[in-house]
Amino acid sequence: MASIRDVARLAQVSPATVSRVMNGTANVDEEKKKRVLKAIEETGFVPNEVARSLFKRSAKLIGLIMPSIENPFFTQLAGAIERTADKHGYRLVLCNTGSVIEKEKAAIQMLVSMNADGIILTSSNDEIRNYTSLCNIPIIVTDRSFNGCGNLKIVHCDHYQGGRMAMEHLIRCGCKSIVCIKGQQEISSAKDRYDGYKDVCQEKGIKEQTVDCAYDFEQGMKVTDELLKKYKDVDGIIACNDMVAVSVYKVLHNKGIRVPEQVQIIGFDDIALAKLMSPELTTISQPIDEIGAKAAELIILKGEETQQEYIFEAKLVERETTRHN
Amino acid sequence: MASIRDVARLAQVSPATVSRVMNGTANVDEEKKKRVLKAIEETGFVPNEVARSLFKRSAKLIGLIMPSIENPFFTQLAGAIERTADKHGYRLVLCNTGSVIEKEKAAIQMLVSMNADGIILTSSNDEIRNYTSLCNIPIIVTDRSFNGCGNLKIVHCDHYQGGRMAMEHLIRCGCKSIVCIKGQQEISSAKDRYDGYKDVCQEKGIKEQTVDCAYDFEQGMKVTDELLKKYKDVDGIIACNDMVAVSVYKVLHNKGIRVPEQVQIIGFDDIALAKLMSPELTTISQPIDEIGAKAAELIILKGEETQQEYIFEAKLVERETTRHN
Repeated sequence: MASIRDVARLAQVSPATVSRVMNGTANVDEEKKKRVLKAIEETGFVPNEVARSLFKRSAKLIGLIMPSIENPFFTQLAGAIERTADKHGYRLVLCNTGSVIEKEKAAIQMLVSMNADGIILTSSNDEIRNYTSLCNIPIIVTDRSFNGCGNLKIVHCDHYQGGRMAMEHLIRCGCKSIVCIKGQQEISSAKDRYDGYKDVCQEKGIKEQTVDCAYDFEQGMKVTDELLKKYKDVDGIIACNDMVAVSVYKVLHNKGIRVPEQVQIIGFDDIALAKLMSPELTTISQPIDEIGAKAAELIILKGEETQQEYIFEAKLVERETTRHN
Repeated sequence: MASIRDVARLAQVSPATVSRVMNGTANVDEEKKKRVLKAIEETGFVPNEVARSLFKRSAKLIGLIMPSIENPFFTQLAGAIERTADKHGYRLVLCNTGSVIEKEKAAIQMLVSMNADGIILTSSNDEIRNYTSLCNIPIIVTDRSFNGCGNLKIVHCDHYQGGRMAMEHLIRCGCKSIVCIKGQQEISSAKDRYDGYKDVCQEKGIKEQTVDCAYDFEQGMKVTDELLKKYKDVDGIIACNDMVAVSVYKVLHNKGIRVPEQVQIIGFDDIALAKLMSPELTTISQPIDEIGAKAAELIILKGEETQQEYIFEAKLVERETTRHN
């Protein structure tokens, strides 16, 4: 087991400097800081949490690293995190990183140097499982799942179950030709949703019908056009999220295809917009407020919660774009 | 004229400590920092920019202080700022403060201690004109206007002109009974929009018809209900922003009132959603990308721009919720 002295020796600095980098209690020369972080990574040094907490003063600050500030799901999640932080007298600082590894690492370093109490991270890349070696404050990953999460804690919704529910609902609503718009499969939540759809297809002996799409309005419109050409008898569409579902509706509406009479639509997330559309969107709801609150509490309540993974159930919300007979 | 020594004497610290607080180059004890900031405010000390810039190392960091992360206008603005920052190798850090003065002040202090190159601020409160005394980095105020802006620079759209355009457009479209949904009048942009509407009424001898509303979906629905009871012959509605326009449409749609045949609607902002609604929303467009880019450039190009106020023109975007004969 590596000690703080091993790290200091490798980084060619004093143990006190290693400690300063870890605690973010004072400014350390950028060059030295880099060497220390590298040495921590190389030695696999895990500091004594208790000893550390004796020295570290809480800044009452939570850092949130998000992939996109222009996706309403993430801003609603940020709102939920902030309300919980506020209740406990914590501030929230946001960094928008587009899931770019270098930006995420820079954001983590910055948040550590600000003496943040913890970081809530949402990202589509897989490198994040190594991020705990970059810092010594808790990292809570939201909206995705993976095996072997190391020191990370994970808070997410059961996307697989949600994917199953979406497919089962459209079948119950009488759809005979259902197309699943798959999100980017490198995002675990998108993959889980698709896996749910796929398994229901297999169990019921239904042939898969899919198209690929990013979480984006413009792409959603383009993909819907393609989908209508590829699957001419489509009567049910599972959108990878609500943003894409809005695009699907728009294209169908423009073409004079009636929803839900001719084609039924189901989304995923239950963002505020789902209820504001006319017709209102049937969707698989993620408990966004609960996910945000739990992620914030895991930082604020410092170690009182020992579970590694928190999974919330998805819920079907029937509105006007499907019709359950 | 107060000197750095006057500030130091009043705060009972050394001039070097005053300098450290101003430059955010090293951690200073919280208690001392507060005393220094108070002394800077009390003495009205304005440091020598040139001297300061010799010492200060750029962190290539822009701080953005926003009133609401759940309002798509602000997140689109944040997206625009970030794209410009990114192009120049700057990072962006966001603080969501709900226009609460204490939170805004804390965010400014934090950003200064992070050695940010400048702050972009959007807020509805009037206290912000005093914020330049809290720090010595540029503060760029977006989306509002006021007289006597001191050291602040201001980047905004001509909301008054936009308010006029909205009213003039509905008149051209044949509306005989136009209701203006006023935003919160303590927000200068909301007041400017309303003033534009009001002046057109006066010039044309039209009686004002208004209701009050916050920038919020739920409130928008409630206010629309009230509006329909209060002004039974309404055939044109000016919404204080696009979010509220979406709510207005929803309520009309639910009541079976046809848009634009029976009632025409015009919004303000031109958020992404305006184009995604069915019918698409006619609105007064703010050049969100240009406003964000200009605000970021004012920080990045450090003093190369000397203008105090940058005003962009609003633009009418005709879509499907109005019908120009």
